[in-house]
Amino acid sequence: MPLFSSSSSSSSSSLLARLASSTPLASRFSIPRLFSLPRRPPPPPPPPPTASPAAAAAMDRTAEDALRRALADKQAAVEAQGNAVRALKAGKAPKPEIDAAIAALNALKIDKAGVEKQLQAAVSGAGDGALTREAFRHAVVNTLERRLFYIPSFKIYRGVAGLYDYGPPGCAVKSNVLAYWRQHFVHEENMLEVDCPCVTPEIVLKASGHVDKFTDLMVKDEKTGTCYRADHLLKDFCNEKLQKDLSISAEKAAELKLVLATLDDLSADELGAKIKEYGIAAPDTKNALSDPYPFNLMFQTSIGPSGLLPGYMRPETAQGIFVNFKDLYYYNGNKLPFAAAQIGQAFRNEISPRQGLLRVREFTLAEIEHFVDPEDKSHPKFSQVADLKFLMFPREQQMSGQSAIKTQLGEAVSKGTVNNATLGYFIGRVYLFLTRLGIDKDRLRFRQHLANEMAHYAADCWDAEIECSYGWIECVGIADRSAYDLRAHTEKSGVALVAHEKFAEPREVEKLVISSNKKKLGLAFKGNQKMVVESLEAMGEEEALQLKAALESKGEAEFLVCTLGKSVIIKDNMVKISKQKIRENQRVFTPSVIEPSFGIGRIIYCLYEHSFYTRPSKAGDEQLNVFRFPPLVAPIKCTVFPLIQKPEYESVAQLISRSLTVAGVSHKIDITGNTIGKRYARTDELGVPFAITVDSQVDVTIRERDSKDQVRVSVGEVASVVKEVIDGHRTWSDVWSSFPHHTSASAEDE
Amino acid sequence: MPLFSSSSSSSSSSLLARLASSTPLASRFSIPRLFSLPRRPPPPPPPPPTASPAAAAAMDRTAEDALRRALADKQAAVEAQGNAVRALKAGKAPKPEIDAAIAALNALKIDKAGVEKQLQAAVSGAGDGALTREAFRHAVVNTLERRLFYIPSFKIYRGVAGLYDYGPPGCAVKSNVLAYWRQHFVHEENMLEVDCPCVTPEIVLKASGHVDKFTDLMVKDEKTGTCYRADHLLKDFCNEKLQKDLSISAEKAAELKLVLATLDDLSADELGAKIKEYGIAAPDTKNALSDPYPFNLMFQTSIGPSGLLPGYMRPETAQGIFVNFKDLYYYNGNKLPFAAAQIGQAFRNEISPRQGLLRVREFTLAEIEHFVDPEDKSHPKFSQVADLKFLMFPREQQMSGQSAIKTQLGEAVSKGTVNNATLGYFIGRVYLFLTRLGIDKDRLRFRQHLANEMAHYAADCWDAEIECSYGWIECVGIADRSAYDLRAHTEKSGVALVAHEKFAEPREVEKLVISSNKKKLGLAFKGNQKMVVESLEAMGEEEALQLKAALESKGEAEFLVCTLGKSVIIKDNMVKISKQKIRENQRVFTPSVIEPSFGIGRIIYCLYEHSFYTRPSKAGDEQLNVFRFPPLVAPIKCTVFPLIQKPEYESVAQLISRSLTVAGVSHKIDITGNTIGKRYARTDELGVPFAITVDSQVDVTIRERDSKDQVRVSVGEVASVVKEVIDGHRTWSDVWSSFPHHTSASAEDE
Repeated sequence: MPLFSSSSSSSSSSLLARLASSTPLASRFSIPRLFSLPRRPPPPPPPPPTASPAAAAAMDRTAEDALRRALADKQAAVEAQGNAVRALKAGKAPKPEIDAAIAALNALKIDKAGVEKQLQAAVSGAGDGALTREAFRHAVVNTLERRLFYIPSFKIYRGVAGLYDYGPPGCAVKSNVLAYWRQHFVHEENMLEVDCPCVTPEIVLKASGHVDKFTDLMVKDEKTGTCYRADHLLKDFCNEKLQKDLSISAEKAAELKLVLATLDDLSADELGAKIKEYGIAAPDTKNALSDPYPFNLMFQTSIGPSGLLPGYMRPETAQGIFVNFKDLYYYNGNKLPFAAAQIGQAFRNEISPRQGLLRVREFTLAEIEHFVDPEDKSHPKFSQVADLKFLMFPREQQMSGQSAIKTQLGEAVSKGTVNNATLGYFIGRVYLFLTRLGIDKDRLRFRQHLANEMAHYAADCWDAEIECSYGWIECVGIADRSAYDLRAHTEKSGVALVAHEKFAEPREVEKLVISSNKKKLGLAFKGNQKMVVESLEAMGEEEALQLKAALESKGEAEFLVCTLGKSVIIKDNMVKISKQKIRENQRVFTPSVIEPSFGIGRIIYCLYEHSFYTRPSKAGDEQLNVFRFPPLVAPIKCTVFPLIQKPEYESVAQLISRSLTVAGVSHKIDITGNTIGKRYARTDELGVPFAITVDSQVDVTIRERDSKDQVRVSVGEVASVVKEVIDGHRTWSDVWSSFPHHTSASAEDE
Repeated sequence: MPLFSSSSSSSSSSLLARLASSTPLASRFSIPRLFSLPRRPPPPPPPPPTASPAAAAAMDRTAEDALRRALADKQAAVEAQGNAVRALKAGKAPKPEIDAAIAALNALKIDKAGVEKQLQAAVSGAGDGALTREAFRHAVVNTLERRLFYIPSFKIYRGVAGLYDYGPPGCAVKSNVLAYWRQHFVHEENMLEVDCPCVTPEIVLKASGHVDKFTDLMVKDEKTGTCYRADHLLKDFCNEKLQKDLSISAEKAAELKLVLATLDDLSADELGAKIKEYGIAAPDTKNALSDPYPFNLMFQTSIGPSGLLPGYMRPETAQGIFVNFKDLYYYNGNKLPFAAAQIGQAFRNEISPRQGLLRVREFTLAEIEHFVDPEDKSHPKFSQVADLKFLMFPREQQMSGQSAIKTQLGEAVSKGTVNNATLGYFIGRVYLFLTRLGIDKDRLRFRQHLANEMAHYAADCWDAEIECSYGWIECVGIADRSAYDLRAHTEKSGVALVAHEKFAEPREVEKLVISSNKKKLGLAFKGNQKMVVESLEAMGEEEALQLKAALESKGEAEFLVCTLGKSVIIKDNMVKISKQKIRENQRVFTPSVIEPSFGIGRIIYCLYEHSFYTRPSKAGDEQLNVFRFPPLVAPIKCTVFPLIQKPEYESVAQLISRSLTVAGVSHKIDITGNTIGKRYARTDELGVPFAITVDSQVDVTIRERDSKDQVRVSVGEVASVVKEVIDGHRTWSDVWSSFPHHTSASAEDE
């Protein structure tokens, strides 16, 4: 999956720049470098210069560029007038003439200063926005870390960049998100969930392309050996120059923007050339940098004690599903379509992780591989999502410099904007999943990959991007990858990962047949017989023919049984290898796979940003933090407070707590002596939707987090009322209209 | 945790042998070798020869040994009589005399053959049992693999030993077990759940002892380099000899049994000496073997691109909790006791994984670290488990050769058999957890560690062992590890992992104070300021004093900030390091930790064995497999079958399916044309507790898996009836007595 590509966001301004690929500079970069993600292999031919003249011109016409040009003009005018003044003075011209020239010069200077100010504002406009965004992010992250949603891993040992722990509330949110994912996708769609190991032998990742292509380009400080991502250094240089150097020309600014836009497509040589051209040095030492070279992002290890079986920590979970296709297809009654799903850890040894919680070295992925007949990609349940309307950002809109637009999904599929109904169905399901978690639908868009972003074999690809303080972040990738992955493993393993469809008429073909003599093999290998037989029967054609030749010439041959971790001697009476004519009664084909792939940590982080707000305390002296999590996601559904420390209230609180436990409502009792206002503030900051305050032995108060509304409910009833609202069987407004309101205690509230 | 020690089971026969440590041979082995698990460090002094004479003698008096002696006597008698016959013949004795001697010889031979037969029976008695166990296991594993509960990982590439996938039903069982674990432990006990990465920097595992001590002893085939676990080879040799060689003397048999019993305690030298003494060669090639040497069982990798930060895949999840103790204690309001929990993958690079699904290279652990004041290990909820009665196997019972006995938990704690009430509470909770999953209480015992099994710092340790076809398997370890782990990390990190208790009187002590000048640091390091400050303030005493000296002499010093992955220059105005007298108002102490640690995969495997049974098909022509999973665990709760392929029935089935989805009941529709009997057999084999057969548009049949009883329920009601039984709100016998029974369709049943 091309989830988590090197550049996580793709803003429309960079797209504008990308469109300018017909300019001379651009043509040098127009061949995309091998994308760092392995499953995005052989470079597609360079995209045709599809940029419309209007779009290309748009870049030049931006206010910022106009101001740069104006500033250069003013600067030239100031210089010219300065020369004129000096000439007048040297020529001893009359004073009034000199004075007039000086006045003109001053006027020009004021003019220039005005333009300079405007440009500064234009350039740092983004900067100011960035500052606001950073301040917001800082407030969110600070709350998240203080309340242990996250903890930098191994903090007492000063941590390791790119590794984070989920603390108690974060862990609860994550487990709620995963439980809902499982409900929404696996259970509701009857998917086949599997759970495969993280440790993966090299051969699997060789087949998938990760061993050869899962790389980022790296440069080293030539003296200290410190490593940097080459594209990051170039990106930082360009951004810094654009934001802080007002003197650069509009042309230079355009060039830098183009570099930013085409960063992902630069080859090692091109990146190296740019780094040299701009004189970029190591940021910390200012030492010279090495040429860029590819660094494989997989964590490498070795399986078993011999050191001879290299392995990697999987960079994604999908491969575990692909290699099991044959068994899963059988499990599904040899019928298509079906989907398999997997939730699990994935690992990427990032060169220098940035973007805090968004780019980490270990993360939870949830992936679906929906296998479908390439000749029929309809979906029986598509009508259930066809009426959904949300922000879509098709290729054409991006190419013409427009924004994402609200689109009806059914229309997008029927018009062919989305390639097929199955892909469309998953887009709709992803939309429902994310918005039900609490992602703001106005900051969620489905962006189609541009032609040059997509692998050559892919039929279509859409990313669910969520806008947060880092920009638009790719959180779910939904790709129609056609038959690529199954074919790659078929080729490497020699095991046909294919589906079947009965023929009307049988047909005859020649096939390799391996038949093992189980009796002989059993006598020779006893308990290991099964593994030897399986290995023999799993041979690819070439290997089988070699073995056949060896057996015919020497009567026996050495044969490696990987499952045993050793070679055995096979005699010619143990196995029969032959080519036979076979009648086939069916179409055999490689299914297409449609892959929705979810970066769970990224979704959760965006959810935090979308759920966070502040409101003044009652006294107005401070801003209080609130996470407006829906109950589905909230780490704790409810808190129980005795209003004051009093044994009777505490035992009522314990009673309510037990009822909540029986009802399966996760909750917490707070019997600290803090004021009720402080206790509300503390639970708001954890996003707890309901608080039960015990101030009598008969009735208690339920307070809703966002409205701060309070109702009075009897002790016996309170757990079931909360449970009903949590489970979505009753709304808060229904509760609000069914129970007496509580206002007197508002003095206790914040 | 000493979960998953090298020898997974400890039978009482090996214990008998272990007790014989006062024999001359035993004394050579009485010093336990450094246990392969790291958190079981410095070797305790050799245990005193506590074996009772009766127990030691018991070994010699076994029937088998008596028979070996008798056989040796008979052999000697046969030889003597043979000589006598030859002498008579040589001396030309009279024929009647020779005939009589020959008759006597024949009688002796018959005698000897009888004893031989008896010994063969005695020796292979265990063998026969083993065969039955193996046949049973074969039946279970065959069903599990055929129905995709498990799949050997990367099967199309011939797999990797010790790695397994959970296929769809296995994955569902696992996720049910984990959900129930979270409910039973985390939610009901208000534990703080965390989720830490698998990738772990070396320093953490150096502190925990894993880098130095997490090893198994390995030997290599000197010619091929193939690796073997040294203790496995010795074990196989002894077992083979004992079972197949009838000619060995009773003394030799006793010696071999003693070796088996003390295998875990042998040092590398001792193991090597035994391998030489017995002439053990490489099993496959008969080549000579290297001396045994330790092999670290952690998968090693490297974090980041520089190759300078070694890391490992965590071998357990507990360390992630220990390093977070400080934050978690704060999160808990600086109050003890509290428990933290973690579910996650752990990795062990086994030398040669055996025992199928029980000893794997990657597995899911669920661990609890309950932190408690060492001076108060009572538990407020102990009374809730005190009346439980189950098989306990205290040290004394093991030492005196007795079996586990049914014990009331309250009594075991009050008598001091179990060290403290908190440990006892967890033993009780583990018992409830396992039996509710479906573990047979008669094949579950809590075995206390013997003195020489336990780490020197541990207060007490009990393993929940489950009996399956491999013997008694350690599935949960419940240990009071005292303050060991927190102290180890305090020492290595320099961060005090301690708890506090207010003093009545304050007291004065000298302390190191590091105060950073945030303004200066902010100016110098901008966005990195926070990480620099944290690193400075996290310095240990020694490092701080070195920095202080450097700043005082040179005015600045280089300082490594791990979180930034680089060194920075610290000037003397940026940080103040001093020793100050401080008044303390509290007791500062390292909490004890009580650690229940669950091998989820092992529990699930044992559950499969305990749930599996076969029953004859209706025709009696075959045995059908059934898993009697409780609904809690069952991978699918319910199947829906139209009795025959008929559109009306199919649409009723779809309707029921939708109601089940809304009710959150995981289920499957089977519309294949198979007979209903075949479909029942298929769902029984997946352990599906209920099947709904649609044979009308008004009423349908619910069939219970184990009783095969069937009731008639209306289409509208069926989903909620199933839901109630699944959730445990209604029993099947209640359903059975509330609805009309269905008998006519039994013709359709198997």
